[in-house]
Amino acid sequence: MAKKESKKLDELFHDTLKDIYFAEKKILATLPKMEKVARAPELKRAFAKHKTETEGHVTRLEKVFAAIDKKPQGKTCDAIVGITDEGAEIMKEYKGSPALDAGLLAAAQAVEHYEISRYGTLIAWAEELGLEDAVSLLEDTLEEEKATDEALTEIAKSAINQQAEAA
Amino acid sequence: MAKKESKKLDELFHDTLKDIYFAEKKILATLPKMEKVARAPELKRAFAKHKTETEGHVTRLEKVFAAIDKKPQGKTCDAIVGITDEGAEIMKEYKGSPALDAGLLAAAQAVEHYEISRYGTLIAWAEELGLEDAVSLLEDTLEEEKATDEALTEIAKSAINQQAEAA
Repeated sequence: MAKKESKKLDELFHDTLKDIYFAEKKILATLPKMEKVARAPELKRAFAKHKTETEGHVTRLEKVFAAIDKKPQGKTCDAIVGITDEGAEIMKEYKGSPALDAGLLAAAQAVEHYEISRYGTLIAWAEELGLEDAVSLLEDTLEEEKATDEALTEIAKSAINQQAEAA
Repeated sequence: MAKKESKKLDELFHDTLKDIYFAEKKILATLPKMEKVARAPELKRAFAKHKTETEGHVTRLEKVFAAIDKKPQGKTCDAIVGITDEGAEIMKEYKGSPALDAGLLAAAQAVEHYEISRYGTLIAWAEELGLEDAVSLLEDTLEEEKATDEALTEIAKSAINQQAEAA
């Protein structure tokens, strides 16, 4: 019985891995749309750069699936669907508005924070489960997500909010 | 024309305020359910404490609405609906499992990170808009959300993950 129950954290890890795998693919599909509509060149560049990084995150997740002898598989992640739906709404409602970029930045930072939370959780669980390779892969991605969030904050502070207000 | 367009960041601020107001109320309705099903006493206490704080966050948001001469009003926040739906799924799927608390903690941290992102954005915009009282109110809440996230991390590290694995 102890053995059976001890598998539960494994299962939760696997379920959450499917969740973030779905999320990363959804983000990969969304970033080009955000890049296209963004007004500020530095924001376009940030979205393009993060798209390339996100491709790497998907590849890393596939390695984590391999590390637990599972096939890469996504599972609908309601959270990221909700967050990206809000982003889509911003793109529609603020199209042509000087506040569009501020709204896009806010949406992108909500995505980053969701990912930071999920990767933080997965790393803690992988440590408990003794999955050292997975910890290392997930940590690499977490660092990139945090760096992206900070870069978006810098862009927001330096230009976008002022544009939105003063335009 | 400049005057009309300069209102856009105000509108984005107001829209996002409605979004987080809806989210805080949704969280207020969800926390008692999480408190009820949590297994570890320290996790039950953390959810109960955060419920009391969340009541304060709702009150502060009402003051922010007043500061911009608007009535408090919520607007469906797809993101928090998605995040709390995931939490509900965890509660259902891991009921009676030693991994339940680990899953609840992960769900709660996803909520906290969403809020941290939203409050960070609102503070930046309130600063741009010169809404000093709003900045102060929103900062008080942001600090509490960050403290809650850190407290949840501590609980996760100290007990829950080990319970989930070793039970």
